[in-house]
Parts: sequence; C-alpha cells; structure tokens
Amino acid sequence: MRVALDAMGGDHAPAVTVEGTVEIVSEYDDIEVILVGDESHLKKELDGKRYPANRILIKHASQVIGMDESPTVALRKKKDSSIRKAVELVKNGGADAVVSAGHSGVAMATALFILGTSKGVDRPAIAAIMPTLKGPFVLIDAGANVDCRPENLLQFAVMGNAYCRSILERPEPKVALLSIGEEDTKGNELTKEAFKLLKEADINFTGNIEGKDVFAGNADVVVCDGFIGNIVLKTSEGLAEAIMKMLKREIAELTTGRVGYLLMKPALRNFKKKTDYAEYGGAPLLGINGTCIISHGRSTSKAIRNALRVAAEFSKKKVYEIISEDISNLHAKERTVVKV
Amino acid sequence: MRVALDAMGGDHAPAVTVEGTVEIVSEYDDIEVILVGDESHLKKELDGKRYPANRILIKHASQVIGMDESPTVALRKKKDSSIRKAVELVKNGGADAVVSAGHSGVAMATALFILGTSKGVDRPAIAAIMPTLKGPFVLIDAGANVDCRPENLLQFAVMGNAYCRSILERPEPKVALLSIGEEDTKGNELTKEAFKLLKEADINFTGNIEGKDVFAGNADVVVCDGFIGNIVLKTSEGLAEAIMKMLKREIAELTTGRVGYLLMKPALRNFKKKTDYAEYGGAPLLGINGTCIISHGRSTSKAIRNALRVAAEFSKKKVYEIISEDISNLHAKERTVVKV
Repeated sequence: MRVALDAMGGDHAPAVTVEGTVEIVSEYDDIEVILVGDESHLKKELDGKRYPANRILIKHASQVIGMDESPTVALRKKKDSSIRKAVELVKNGGADAVVSAGHSGVAMATALFILGTSKGVDRPAIAAIMPTLKGPFVLIDAGANVDCRPENLLQFAVMGNAYCRSILERPEPKVALLSIGEEDTKGNELTKEAFKLLKEADINFTGNIEGKDVFAGNADVVVCDGFIGNIVLKTSEGLAEAIMKMLKREIAELTTGRVGYLLMKPALRNFKKKTDYAEYGGAPLLGINGTCIISHGRSTSKAIRNALRVAAEFSKKKVYEIISEDISNLHAKERTVVKV
Repeated sequence: MRVALDAMGGDHAPAVTVEGTVEIVSEYDDIEVILVGDESHLKKELDGKRYPANRILIKHASQVIGMDESPTVALRKKKDSSIRKAVELVKNGGADAVVSAGHSGVAMATALFILGTSKGVDRPAIAAIMPTLKGPFVLIDAGANVDCRPENLLQFAVMGNAYCRSILERPEPKVALLSIGEEDTKGNELTKEAFKLLKEADINFTGNIEGKDVFAGNADVVVCDGFIGNIVLKTSEGLAEAIMKMLKREIAELTTGRVGYLLMKPALRNFKKKTDYAEYGGAPLLGINGTCIISHGRSTSKAIRNALRVAAEFSKKKVYEIISEDISNLHAKERTVVKV
C-alpha cells in the first residue's frame, strides 16, 4: 500500500509527519509513504534518520495551507499546496490513500473536489472512533456536515455500518441514533424523521441512544448531524482532559498523594493509551471515491504513524468500495419500495 | 422560605425525598418544606426521625406520575398528582418554590401550564450548572426545547446571564454560544443567526465557544439549543462515569494498585464531590412565573437536600423577577431599534 502524506499539515509538521513516516515504514514491510511538501525541508528532516529508503518518497509541493485559511480560497488559489498534491496522487493512481493533519476543512473540501463523492452519496461524512468501557464505537458524522436532512442521516448510518464491519470487524454492528430519549417519539424534527428511515433500512438499527449511554458502549455506530457530532467529539475530548487535570490537582494536594500517584502511574498511563485520540490516528472521510484520513491538528508522531497504518488498512480492505456497494443497495431498495 | 417538594418524584422516592428534607430543615432555620404526596406513606417515612416538626408539613396527593407517562396525558388525567399539587402550592401562594426529581418532562409541562411563562419569554429553558477547571458554568438550554429559533437562543442568553449574576454571583458573566468554530461564520444556520442577535444584546457576549473549551472554564454561560444541551449534559455525565470506571479497572489490574488507590482515595473523593451533579441539586426552569427546580431522577438524599437549598436561595434572591426585568429590557431595546 502506498500512502500520500500531507507532510506540511498539522501544528507540529513536518517534524512529526516525517518521524511518524519513519516509524511506520520501519515497522511494516508493505507500506510505502510519499511525503508531499517542501522538498528541501523534508530532506533536511529525513537527514540522519535510518529507514528503508526505497519506501519513503518525496513529492515536492511549494505551498502550505495555514490553519486560518478559508477552504474555498485555498482550493482556488493554492493549486500547489501539499494537501492538494497529496490528494491528486490518489486521483491519478500514484497513491492508494491520503492522510492529512492540516486544516481539516481544507482537507475535506480538497478530497471532495478532486476525488468526488461516491455514486449515490449525497454528503460524505467523517467517522470518528471513540473509546468506551466495552471497546470503541464509530461516531458519524463527526463534523463534515451541519444542517442535515433525514436522508443524510440514513446514509451516514449505512456508511458507518460498512466502516464498522470492515475496520472494527464486527459482523453485525448495532447502529443507534443519538437523541434525547430512547422512545421513537423523542428527539427533534430531524431525528424523528431519520428514525423512521433507519427503522426500514437493511441495518441492525437499535433505536435512539441517549448521551448518557454512548460511553457505556451500547452501540457500535452512533449516528448524528455533523454539528452535534463535532460538539460531542470536542466536548468529550475537553472533558477527558479536564478530568485528568482535576484529578492530578487533587492528588498533588494530598500528602500521601505523591506516593499514591507513583504507584498508580502505570494505571493512568494505560488509561491514557486506551482513550488517546492518537491511538486511532485519524478519522476517515466516508462517501468519497478514495481513501482520505483526516488527523488531529495537534497530531504527534504516534498519531501520524497510526493514521498511516489506518489509511493502509482502509485501502487494503477496499472500505470505500464496500460503502459504495452498500449505498447502491440502499438506493436499489428505495426504488423497489417506490415500485410496489 | 417555604419549598413544596414533589415527595413521590424520583427513582428512590419517597425515601430520599424525606431524608433530604429532614437534612435541610435540620441545617437551615429559615427553610420550611411541604412534602407533597401520599400522606400515610410520607408519615411512615418520617416516623422515628428527629427534626424540627413545625418546619416539615405534609400535603396529601393521591396520584403519582410514572417515569414512562406522557406529559400531556399526565396533565389531563392526573389532576391529583404530587407534582401538580406541589406546583399549585406555588401558584396559590402556599409555597415560594417547587422541587421535583420526578419525570422531568411532566414537571416542566406542569410548571409551564400552572404558573405560565414570564412576560416576554417565548420559551422557558433549563439552566444546568456544570463543573470546570475554573469553577462551574451555566449551560442553557439543557433540554427544555428542541428545534429552537435564533430569538429563543437570545432569550436563553439573557436568562442565563441573569441566573449566573444572581446565583453564581459573577457581576458580568462571559456569555458564549456553543458552536463548531470560534469565528462568527462557523456553525449551523441557527447559531449563525443567533450570533448576530447576541452580538447586539446588552450582555458580555464573548462569541462562539467550541466543545473542547467548554470544560476549560472559559465561559460563565454557554448557550445552545435544548437538543444539543441535553446531549452535552448527558454525554458528559456518561463520560465522567466511564472514565472513573476505566481508571478503577486499570488500578485493580496493578499489583501496587490497591495501595496506590488507598493513598489516593481522598483525592478521588474530592474530585467526585466537585463534579457530582448531586452537589448542585438540580436545574431551574427559567422564564416561568415562579421558582421550579428540576432534579435528576436518580437523585440521592444529598441531591434533594441541595435542590431544596437552591430553590430557597433562588426564591430569596427573586431570580425569576430579575429574569423578567432583563427580558423586558431586551424587548424595550428591540422596540427602540425598530423605531430608529
């Protein structure tokens, strides 16, 4: 598998993008990475590092997109940006997948514009993997679309279902709709209409799920509007950080705390490992013609390494083709229903 | 202050409602509680307990609303329910405030129906207090309204601002709008329109706040649609619980964990105290003619005790009158703007 990496994207690029690349190619024989970005800068970063040289390539791109740029302007004016060049490699067959930790709005817009949406998909969506007591679940849409229609939520459910089967390897994922009550009459206009569509779809739809049950691990796929998904994702991240800080502060105030802390440190470390976004590397944009993984702007080299691994796996398992097939089955069913 | 308590409402009523009542009247000389519910049942619960007898009264109500009943049916058919009788006491001057840990939809609908909305308020909203690294903030609306209009969000902001000044005693609260980016162009249709209205309002509006910053304590009042507010509230509650369980599990797996856990227990206890919903007792329904505190269905006696304290304080400070005044100032300003 050959992955194109937007080597200039992210708060700590290109140091961490190059570092993560060296890690992944040293570990996996079947992964090649094309670093896309300023050639001289990237060569300098690679300098002195040991790695299988034939599996790290460089593709020069003269421009970089800043975190505060507008997606439309970036698309129109920066045709030689690292993200655009990386996506173009997927389009023209030079790479199997693309990874970016840069401006996520720009990465999404570029992937959408260059690769296009899969046939039958109205709106591509971001699928984020989140930890729970019983293992991870898929949150979709985690932020690609605000102001959705019920039909969009149905497609998110179908795409999330396909993703969960392929990547989390759960044969019949429990798909739930995020709402404010379990009964089908609870929710806002959007979720009440979406509920009716999901009930009829060819997925294991388990009904509404409330916020309090999401982290108990009762669903494999949680479906929502991208505005809400993004708020849930970011709030959870912020809360988990705040909890760890508050706990550490309480511990520091104890006389026995220091000893207790040292004794418990491995537990805190394991916990952090299980809940760290970096473990999952990034979130795919589902519903486009190709594999595109969006990583956190704050990505560390570990996050980049994992994103590259996810991209290769995603591409190897042809997840986007499976999604395409499921969406076309959905439409075939819709046509049958209309006929009858 | 005299508080009417829906003594039959909540998962553990009337044991915890009676227990919480005994606690609060034993502690505060100026609080009286009217227990509303099945008289013989309540007398039995009080039996053998020591408390200042002249400050706990009983008002009989023959019916109880179950957690699965519909608000409209409950309002129409159960005219002798404990929640309705309790709210009626506020209406006819027999009590200054009402507290219920029963079916929150029924409690809200009953308060709204019997007491009515304050002049100028289109939609009453629930204000929940949530902990952060720098102290608590107010989340409004935490679940009373789904499908809001921008004008509703403006009123939530004004009500939350008044509540925060009065109860959290912050003279000029920082009011922020929950969205998916800090810039005013980020968000969905609702928040983008609401942003314009909030910018013009006579409050200290600090712009959009992202999910990740909510628990850092950067805002005193966070404004959102009730569907999202409820999901944020419940997701946070669920996540905090899941994190503590996951941490305990990691600790249990360590050989040194048991000792470390014992040494750190006071820190965990302090943390729990600071983040426990029971500390805040309940959330007021703002924008109605009277004081109504909605408590968690799972309320413990401590939560009930605190809800009764909050209700008394809320009523003593005449918070609902302050809100009424702020809302009427808002409309006066709107009229001026239209005139010019």
